[in-house]
Amino acid sequence: MARQIFDDAEYDRRIERTSDRMAERDLDAIVVTDPANMNYLTGYDGWSFYVHQAVVLAAEREEPVWVGREMDANGARATTRLSEESIRAYSDDHVHSPVDLHPMDYLTGVLEELDVADGRIGLEMDAAYFTAKSYTRLQKNLPDASFEDTTLLVNWVRIEKSSQELEYMRQAARISENAMRAGLDAIEAGVPEYEAARAIYDALIGGADGYGGDYPAIVPLMPSGDHTGTPHLTWTDREFEEGDPVIIELSGCRHRYHSPLARTTFVGDPPAEIERTAEVVVDGIEAALDAVEPGVTCEAVERAWRETIAAHGIEKEDRIGYSMGLGYPPDWGEHTASLRPGDETVLEEDMTFHTIPGIWGDDFGVEISETFRVTSDGAEPLAEFPRTLFST
Amino acid sequence: MARQIFDDAEYDRRIERTSDRMAERDLDAIVVTDPANMNYLTGYDGWSFYVHQAVVLAAEREEPVWVGREMDANGARATTRLSEESIRAYSDDHVHSPVDLHPMDYLTGVLEELDVADGRIGLEMDAAYFTAKSYTRLQKNLPDASFEDTTLLVNWVRIEKSSQELEYMRQAARISENAMRAGLDAIEAGVPEYEAARAIYDALIGGADGYGGDYPAIVPLMPSGDHTGTPHLTWTDREFEEGDPVIIELSGCRHRYHSPLARTTFVGDPPAEIERTAEVVVDGIEAALDAVEPGVTCEAVERAWRETIAAHGIEKEDRIGYSMGLGYPPDWGEHTASLRPGDETVLEEDMTFHTIPGIWGDDFGVEISETFRVTSDGAEPLAEFPRTLFST
Repeated sequence: MARQIFDDAEYDRRIERTSDRMAERDLDAIVVTDPANMNYLTGYDGWSFYVHQAVVLAAEREEPVWVGREMDANGARATTRLSEESIRAYSDDHVHSPVDLHPMDYLTGVLEELDVADGRIGLEMDAAYFTAKSYTRLQKNLPDASFEDTTLLVNWVRIEKSSQELEYMRQAARISENAMRAGLDAIEAGVPEYEAARAIYDALIGGADGYGGDYPAIVPLMPSGDHTGTPHLTWTDREFEEGDPVIIELSGCRHRYHSPLARTTFVGDPPAEIERTAEVVVDGIEAALDAVEPGVTCEAVERAWRETIAAHGIEKEDRIGYSMGLGYPPDWGEHTASLRPGDETVLEEDMTFHTIPGIWGDDFGVEISETFRVTSDGAEPLAEFPRTLFST
Repeated sequence: MARQIFDDAEYDRRIERTSDRMAERDLDAIVVTDPANMNYLTGYDGWSFYVHQAVVLAAEREEPVWVGREMDANGARATTRLSEESIRAYSDDHVHSPVDLHPMDYLTGVLEELDVADGRIGLEMDAAYFTAKSYTRLQKNLPDASFEDTTLLVNWVRIEKSSQELEYMRQAARISENAMRAGLDAIEAGVPEYEAARAIYDALIGGADGYGGDYPAIVPLMPSGDHTGTPHLTWTDREFEEGDPVIIELSGCRHRYHSPLARTTFVGDPPAEIERTAEVVVDGIEAALDAVEPGVTCEAVERAWRETIAAHGIEKEDRIGYSMGLGYPPDWGEHTASLRPGDETVLEEDMTFHTIPGIWGDDFGVEISETFRVTSDGAEPLAEFPRTLFST
């Protein structure tokens, strides 16, 4: 029996909205390879994205078709509502094959059966996991098809969240709060970085209020000391030292939905310069949140941040946030709207963003972030966590 | 100051071996996008593979060139020995850009400066993260280049491990032992799956013998009950029930090196059928390990397994293992040699494999795995963990 995270009506709505966008572009089918998009359209959930897999949505067929590896077909049966004829699996000799056999050869057969082999087919050309080889193989196998780049087609459908999606994001926010508290409590001089990561993981997986946490799409990041200027290093055996600034960025995850949160702490008594910088960051993020409401553009939200910090004498122009929600490694971002100069996306109710502005000095950085929902007249931060510089 | 996980001589050797393979194929440069291959050639380590990045190795230049996002350049400075001129970063407007700007445009400039723009350039066409768009963009930008598929070129260099690599894999094995013990101890009727995952993570990150654990390239997998036939589902809120078989597959990770381990447990008293099946799996894996020695082919190892279980009346032909070591999400496998029919790769000393055979009944599966090194005359399992069916 399949466990369903959303009811049928929600999947129907997602497919309908996606089909509408396909119709606008006169597409006969799309091949969806981003695991988050596969999940969005079918519910499929498994750590199987290290082999080629896809969901095919054809204009003439209501039910999407899941295509993957034989041993994962039972995973599709367990996590989707798809009928047996819509679960199509290739044999294991397609996997890292020493002979000339590629999962896209099998997918080709599925597209032929769906009668779209000579049609207009959308491909997620720039999605992680849709490799160059997958593309050249489909080109070779389907000389009569015309391929269109539909990289963000489903992602743009995902940008407005349903109430059930928001419920999972709020659950993720509870987990984020617990994990941030655990991380801040664990950090002190002499403690190795991995012990802080361990405390964070305990809360991330332990969940909140009686439910568990999924693995997040990005591991907890904890740049410290002179590494606060480079955000994507992970923990090591190094011990925190008196005088280290430490940025913690993490996200709880619930049914693959995230609510990221970042805070900055200081090992010891923070110097006045860092405290002042943190105040500017708080002023700036609050100005950005105040600017949020339906009808406002993404770039206007960034402008509110930029003008606020400029009043403190700091000039910088950055991407300070992005639309997010459902995700798998390597990313929880949706890659659609960004809070940055030039992005004219108009905010609508129930969009969700992670805004993560920061200011860097010569040898430290301060970041404070919020995940928020656009409400009917403002912004609702999903987590409740003091917006301040912490210290040990 | 860069933290170096390996000494200079080791990186020199890796680059030399890679260059030899490039020379055999008359390549002027290779663009390496697999994060494990990037790490292997330079030491670069960061959770930045959700944006496009690469290491370029040119035939005429000893030092590789790291190409990535501006905010990750400090990560390259912190984790590699590359000189400043070999760290090349693109501005943030290339990231999820609403305008027509792609990181491969920047990479094109680097290839031009390296004077290989009209040369023979190797691309990892089927590596996760090297997208179709990256390829078509390079094609468009470099009309005079001739592109070759070098998907596994560096991976094949990685197949034989150095003594330092083996040391990190042995450290990872200690972590795997701790994590497996923690998982087995946590599982009992009434315990939610996520609590077992939490116990496993505590050991995975907490490390062993005073060193910490990295995040593994694949999260702990714990298919249970009738899901033991589909290996890639992750934990949920479901409580383990009396009568559940549970397969735990996990890996400790140390400096990105893995030593995966799988065991099967049973909630309650295992039925005789499962006990018998487990005995066959143990017999089979031990026959496979006994068959390992330099000069033997991969398929001969699988054959030893297959013939052993056939003597118990079980007929199946499977991939029962693969070369592995260094890795990032989504996979710790190297995608080169597999222990399966038809793979004629000849084993050599210091190759490392994860062999994970299994047998499935109608409503249960039993898997028992070992990570082993090929020694001068046999196989050395890296972890010491009882090879048996467990029960709660």
